[in-house]
Amino acid sequence: MIAEQTLTEQYLRVRAHSETICQDLETEDYVVQPIVDVSPPKWHLGHTTWFWETFILLPNAPGYHAFHEDFSYVFNSYYETVGKRVLRADRGNLSRPTVAGVYAYRAYVDEHMNRFLTTADLSPDLYALIELGLNHEQQHQELLITDIKYILGHNPLLPAIKMPILEHQPQLPGSPISIREGIYQIGFSSSAKSFCFDNELGRHKVYLNDTTLAGNLVTNGDYLAFIKSGGYQNFRHWLSDGWAWVNANGIQAPLYWYQVDGEWWNYTFNGLQPVDIAAPVCHVSQYEADAYARWRGTRLPTEFEWEAAAVEAAAVDVAAVAGQLNWGSRWEWTNSAYLPYPGFNTAEGAVGEYNGKFMSAQTVLRGASVATPEGHSRPTYRNFFQPDKRWQYTGIRLVE
Amino acid sequence: MIAEQTLTEQYLRVRAHSETICQDLETEDYVVQPIVDVSPPKWHLGHTTWFWETFILLPNAPGYHAFHEDFSYVFNSYYETVGKRVLRADRGNLSRPTVAGVYAYRAYVDEHMNRFLTTADLSPDLYALIELGLNHEQQHQELLITDIKYILGHNPLLPAIKMPILEHQPQLPGSPISIREGIYQIGFSSSAKSFCFDNELGRHKVYLNDTTLAGNLVTNGDYLAFIKSGGYQNFRHWLSDGWAWVNANGIQAPLYWYQVDGEWWNYTFNGLQPVDIAAPVCHVSQYEADAYARWRGTRLPTEFEWEAAAVEAAAVDVAAVAGQLNWGSRWEWTNSAYLPYPGFNTAEGAVGEYNGKFMSAQTVLRGASVATPEGHSRPTYRNFFQPDKRWQYTGIRLVE
Amino acid sequence: MIAEQTLTEQYLRVRAHSETICQDLETEDYVVQPIVDVSPPKWHLGHTTWFWETFILLPNAPGYHAFHEDFSYVFNSYYETVGKRVLRADRGNLSRPTVAGVYAYRAYVDEHMNRFLTTADLSPDLYALIELGLNHEQQHQELLITDIKYILGHNPLLPAIKMPILEHQPQLPGSPISIREGIYQIGFSSSAKSFCFDNELGRHKVYLNDTTLAGNLVTNGDYLAFIKSGGYQNFRHWLSDGWAWVNANGIQAPLYWYQVDGEWWNYTFNGLQPVDIAAPVCHVSQYEADAYARWRGTRLPTEFEWEAAAVEAAAVDVAAVAGQLNWGSRWEWTNSAYLPYPGFNTAEGAVGEYNGKFMSAQTVLRGASVATPEGHSRPTYRNFFQPDKRWQYTGIRLVE
Amino acid sequence: MIAEQTLTEQYLRVRAHSETICQDLETEDYVVQPIVDVSPPKWHLGHTTWFWETFILLPNAPGYHAFHEDFSYVFNSYYETVGKRVLRADRGNLSRPTVAGVYAYRAYVDEHMNRFLTTADLSPDLYALIELGLNHEQQHQELLITDIKYILGHNPLLPAIKMPILEHQPQLPGSPISIREGIYQIGFSSSAKSFCFDNELGRHKVYLNDTTLAGNLVTNGDYLAFIKSGGYQNFRHWLSDGWAWVNANGIQAPLYWYQVDGEWWNYTFNGLQPVDIAAPVCHVSQYEADAYARWRGTRLPTEFEWEAAAVEAAAVDVAAVAGQLNWGSRWEWTNSAYLPYPGFNTAEGAVGEYNGKFMSAQTVLRGASVATPEGHSRPTYRNFFQPDKRWQYTGIRLVE
Repeated sequence: MIAEQTLTEQYLRVRAHSETICQDLETEDYVVQPIVDVSPPKWHLGHTTWFWETFILLPNAPGYHAFHEDFSYVFNSYYETVGKRVLRADRGNLSRPTVAGVYAYRAYVDEHMNRFLTTADLSPDLYALIELGLNHEQQHQELLITDIKYILGHNPLLPAIKMPILEHQPQLPGSPISIREGIYQIGFSSSAKSFCFDNELGRHKVYLNDTTLAGNLVTNGDYLAFIKSGGYQNFRHWLSDGWAWVNANGIQAPLYWYQVDGEWWNYTFNGLQPVDIAAPVCHVSQYEADAYARWRGTRLPTEFEWEAAAVEAAAVDVAAVAGQLNWGSRWEWTNSAYLPYPGFNTAEGAVGEYNGKFMSAQTVLRGASVATPEGHSRPTYRNFFQPDKRWQYTGIRLVE
Repeated sequence: MIAEQTLTEQYLRVRAHSETICQDLETEDYVVQPIVDVSPPKWHLGHTTWFWETFILLPNAPGYHAFHEDFSYVFNSYYETVGKRVLRADRGNLSRPTVAGVYAYRAYVDEHMNRFLTTADLSPDLYALIELGLNHEQQHQELLITDIKYILGHNPLLPAIKMPILEHQPQLPGSPISIREGIYQIGFSSSAKSFCFDNELGRHKVYLNDTTLAGNLVTNGDYLAFIKSGGYQNFRHWLSDGWAWVNANGIQAPLYWYQVDGEWWNYTFNGLQPVDIAAPVCHVSQYEADAYARWRGTRLPTEFEWEAAAVEAAAVDVAAVAGQLNWGSRWEWTNSAYLPYPGFNTAEGAVGEYNGKFMSAQTVLRGASVATPEGHSRPTYRNFFQPDKRWQYTGIRLVE
Repeated sequence: MIAEQTLTEQYLRVRAHSETICQDLETEDYVVQPIVDVSPPKWHLGHTTWFWETFILLPNAPGYHAFHEDFSYVFNSYYETVGKRVLRADRGNLSRPTVAGVYAYRAYVDEHMNRFLTTADLSPDLYALIELGLNHEQQHQELLITDIKYILGHNPLLPAIKMPILEHQPQLPGSPISIREGIYQIGFSSSAKSFCFDNELGRHKVYLNDTTLAGNLVTNGDYLAFIKSGGYQNFRHWLSDGWAWVNANGIQAPLYWYQVDGEWWNYTFNGLQPVDIAAPVCHVSQYEADAYARWRGTRLPTEFEWEAAAVEAAAVDVAAVAGQLNWGSRWEWTNSAYLPYPGFNTAEGAVGEYNGKFMSAQTVLRGASVATPEGHSRPTYRNFFQPDKRWQYTGIRLVE
Repeated sequence: MIAEQTLTEQYLRVRAHSETICQDLETEDYVVQPIVDVSPPKWHLGHTTWFWETFILLPNAPGYHAFHEDFSYVFNSYYETVGKRVLRADRGNLSRPTVAGVYAYRAYVDEHMNRFLTTADLSPDLYALIELGLNHEQQHQELLITDIKYILGHNPLLPAIKMPILEHQPQLPGSPISIREGIYQIGFSSSAKSFCFDNELGRHKVYLNDTTLAGNLVTNGDYLAFIKSGGYQNFRHWLSDGWAWVNANGIQAPLYWYQVDGEWWNYTFNGLQPVDIAAPVCHVSQYEADAYARWRGTRLPTEFEWEAAAVEAAAVDVAAVAGQLNWGSRWEWTNSAYLPYPGFNTAEGAVGEYNGKFMSAQTVLRGASVATPEGHSRPTYRNFFQPDKRWQYTGIRLVE
């Protein structure tokens, strides 16, 4: 149970971080949507605010009035229970509400939330909903970063901006971690009092075989060898869907890579930079991760192997886990489909739509990335995207 | 021949008007591109500036340096001779250069143009090119207005802004104008010393039959009768392409019309307003204009009939032409395809691409609209769009 | 007025010719539809039969019963007044009715038509409708040939079949024909008692300037020079729509041309053959015809110039017209949009939909081709297709 | 090890069955391809023959000459190692080779295979390849049936034909089968000497929880209750991708269902028939199966639960398995993604492409259907399709 004061502080800190991410944006950067997957930054700022207004303030704060009656329509995402959604593809056509209007919306809601959190007697259910809201906003913080990168990285001027993350850092020398054949517990332990998403619940047993996960992520240097060997031109390495994707889109390198006079550069928040050979490869699809693994004669881990290895590492030395496996810089593609754990139940109501309905045709990623907000990940966390997506900070860890 | 001083004044006046049109925009309104036909306002402001920089200053003003080396790529439109064009559909994805950057670009170019125009000894060719630039910018002024309307008129908040035009005004009682069977001269007379576009040149004879053009444009009230009679549901009134367009897009009324509780409203720069029965119908496609005419048992005029009638009217009473025929509030769809006049020649160089290459699958519109800059039209002016386009201020005049 | 006996004979001869065209087809060739523009041969055979059943027998032949109640749905084309049309794109998915079933349908309708024509007392209106039906079937005969060519010419086996036409013949030396500036009568003369389509009616005056049409069509040899000069790679020659078409479809030569080891071959009904340098170029779009003309520094004629020249030629020597101008081997692209003549009126009823509703975004072709049935063309005949279409026997005549 | 004589007999029996399936087709039915998923029957007949020619005769039968040099191009499917594949969507445009030509190809190859099988000394590898070929042809036999059904079931004449299967039979009363929590062996046992596909290999342990599978498949009557309750109109039952699929395609019932005057009919090989309430529901997508299960408050089994239950049932009474669980009439959608078993290895060469490269975005189906050839399934068999596919004989078994 979180103390009330702490909760308010936590709320304000999380909310402030969303705005810190956008600190160096021009007004225009908040508005555009170059592809359907990418939302305009002002939409993220509005949508997260709408969550607080809709699920906390309107039903629970007496006398609260919505900031603007049409914002519910504009900033709803895919919660079909709350109202007719805006088609995601249309978000980038909306010049209004303005950025200033969105910040005013945030200030208004924050003021009311602050008052509400410091005065209300919160039921356990409401606590849980607020915790969900904080984690929801943190998820959008990572998307804010990746969406801003996409917007600027596809502008012919390739502008640099300040962003409070370190994108490309060489790894420490890691040590492989082995798991032994046997039964493992997978999923979030409900005895832990801390937060998790619904898709992590349903702790259950799985049977795993002997496996060793590499202690380091695949580096840009490793991946360049794949490119130079003609990896993108040889169908043998690729899943059928992956090969079709490579050809339909003319894929020849990770996202944001540009070849200039024979040298590879990549767009970063510092502008166009030479590709750092020592840093972990980033912005690859699962198709690319899988093809790279096949080319190397190995495979991607399953999400279960990944979690068991993480627990194994923690059992040896809790403090050293992140360091040992170099976790946390890239979301790591697994070869597991995103499916329900045994006993998974969709919660009632709009919030219940949270995760279950996406359990089709998506792939699980584990770990965290340089863009993940502090404290937002854990060994049981299940991130998921379609296998062709690569605008997140995605990378590759192999089974040895 | 325009006096030098006058030309500078004219330049500054035209340039200032582009900015006046945008006076009440929010920064965000400059950025978005909801459909391919509509360009972001900041693109129009940059593109017209690029014209002056590329065709006047860089080749003619000694010591002039381009404001920014990448702007040529960003603000080029379809001039294939000058460089690789930006796909029109991509313009709305570009948050940079910023609006402030575009205005700085304008100021920089205006300062150099001002200096150039007041000091250079302009050759006749250069004069002609500057006149073309002024008319080019005026064309974009009309597009600025219609594109801003599209951007705001498709925002769920339907915002009102100040715009220096009167969109919907009732017409004066007009008088039909008849032309008698015989030979007519069509096209711009090269003995006139004033400006025209290349597509108006090649004055030539056409043979016309007795025809009478209505003295008034079709009104919203007239058009409502068509809607109410089931005009959009009966294929008999429609061209085959038009009927396919109606069905593929679910068309049921002119653009910007919304039915609320049985009453028709339309979006205007003053926000959502009841449809004014007396004002000329606006924002209709040529398919709709043609279907309406068939439903009424008549037809649209050809561009030749239109021009002959305009000259006829002027012969009777020059001053009264606009009033008599109520010209100037709507671009009037004709039933003429946009094709070259006899002897039409494409000019050499990039500017030569101006008009000729669009002479396929487009329809001529004659007259002018409430959004047309003052002095930018004339009886020989040939505007053209594909027959399904209706975000311009387009209307209907029938043959009686 | 056609004598009754003659009409029956004429009917049977036209009907037989449709089947002669298909004499060498395999059953499978009747079924497929590789692109939307191309209809399966069995559909043409059924659709033309449906015309006779629907417009002649059912309303006029007492006691006639439809051959099959569902055939009206299957073989209707775009006559919206008669029933819900089959989407053209779906025709190639229909394995039933079988080819044998379609021939049985033809035999059944022919038997009843034969009886009807020899016994009924035909009103002038019915005569006119029968004449229309004969001309309608002849139009489909040309489409049968071009559609069969498309089906076989896009099969990797490139099969040869017997087809009663000579596709590629060298031209005789033609003589240019000049018309003098002045007024010309255009359109079908209603004093002539013979058949014409509704779009030819409305004989009217046009004013033309001095023009000379080439006496020969552009040859494959001429066109090869355009290809070799990089004509398909230089945007300057092309209409904007044409250039987009070239690039979107990777166009590099006329349809059916294949380059093998540096030599150009083209698919013909005799299989793959070397391109005949002396024969008129064939299977080009209007975009290609227009680009070729620009590259040559000239232009395509208008449909009015074409018709005036044809009449001019006939005035000199009626018998020599075809020979002098080498007319009849290729449909000749004009630069005229397909639009109504003055006074054009759409007829009432389903047959009235015949031509008028296609008067948008299509271009007129004049003359006739090697695939045109004997007696099916005349100087006033207006054929029309969208400018990107080239599976017809289309060619190029320049203005000199 | 199969005796040589038996192998020849087996070959001839399997080959004959492919032709038996097509016994009642018209030539035209062999040709069309209404959607990309459906291949023309003549393609299946040619492609299976191409397998024998390419993988057995050409490399192993001395002096064998290919029947036709271009058939490899025409009848290849997706084996990228053998040659450039024909786009699947293009198969339905090919009128040649004719059906008679394909049967001649079959006869030619069968004659040579017969000779080869009865005279050659087959190595174990060649035996294995022949067994694979037989199973490959059996897979296409099921596709032949489902593709023929699609072709005829989407023809407006809805023709009936003879097909040697019983599509819709009421089920026997089944008994639920329970599995107890614990470790289960999954996958084909390599100690068994019989055939399996590569995707079944890698027998391994999985940990399962207590589960009970229904003894009967969901019936049409059950499913009608879902339809009548508004199941297709309520997003809460659906996966996000499924809901998008329902709306984009206007889905309101299983494939082949038509509502006529308030009653539900479905297309069968006997023509249009009233839906049989007692028969198991058929032709549903996994989206529909999943939505139905949620509506019923339960879920689909995983492929591991299914296989464990099948083994469990067999342990009790081998003979009664099929009867008890009513297996074999519908492929049963699971909630398992199609992914590699531990230790899965792609074989070398073209045949190695067989299964591994499809392990992305597909769902496993277990069991068999009325269209599955005799002896072609087993408890470890893993069928797989994308979750939106429903032209196979797919059905639903729930977890109780």
